[in-house]
Amino acid sequence: MPEIVALLRDDILGQGREGDSLAPYFQAFDQIGAESNNALLVGVDETRAAGMQVVATYQLICMSGLSMQAARRAEIENVRVHSDLRGQGVGALMFADAERRARDAGCIMLQLTTNKAREDAQRFYARLGFSADHIGYKKLLG
Amino acid sequence: MPEIVALLRDDILGQGREGDSLAPYFQAFDQIGAESNNALLVGVDETRAAGMQVVATYQLICMSGLSMQAARRAEIENVRVHSDLRGQGVGALMFADAERRARDAGCIMLQLTTNKAREDAQRFYARLGFSADHIGYKKLLG
Repeated sequence: MPEIVALLRDDILGQGREGDSLAPYFQAFDQIGAESNNALLVGVDETRAAGMQVVATYQLICMSGLSMQAARRAEIENVRVHSDLRGQGVGALMFADAERRARDAGCIMLQLTTNKAREDAQRFYARLGFSADHIGYKKLLG
Repeated sequence: MPEIVALLRDDILGQGREGDSLAPYFQAFDQIGAESNNALLVGVDETRAAGMQVVATYQLICMSGLSMQAARRAEIENVRVHSDLRGQGVGALMFADAERRARDAGCIMLQLTTNKAREDAQRFYARLGFSADHIGYKKLLG
């Protein structure tokens, strides 16, 4: 868990919004495990020093729905690659894994949102064949 | 189910992409029910004729996650209001319901995507206090 949270912090948008206590993260980890359609994945590089081996993470949430002829879709959240390893194909490996898992779960679509400030991410998703024809809306519940 | 599918068809983008057989929709309905964090909601107007009383629908999927201090977020999908009733506050009632349900489920954020072609929807979400600072990416798995 400390290694995953370090990845979340090691991010231009994430650096200011993560907490110091690990307790809420462990609690959410248990909740993720309790949601039958929610998976937290990590990429591990066993050649790195102990305590620094988690180099990538994402979440895959499969959602059944009625539209598009009752299509099941997979939402991808919280994609992070260690800053030491960006631009080296780790993201593409992770998305190949996501596609395989989504297909195996009966999903016909992958979807995600990315902040407009993440220009590198936009190029990456276009390269992977994602279309950018939607606007992503967020509302914090005060 | 026929009434919900009629709502999905009664849509500028949905009209060409829904099927005639209800069997896949009933199957997805069972799957939605089996996903502990996925809810299909309908708005019913009991003053209308039998068989035409479902006038609105949306889905709310609550997802636990690690980022943003282990925030739980709620995804909204498949929002539709009957064409007879658009512009009369039904959408706002539905989103007030979604916010209440999301809060009750421990979510601190609502999120959704909308196609860039849906200009009325964009005005609606801005009015409800959603921020449009994300791009929504989709990829069909062939």
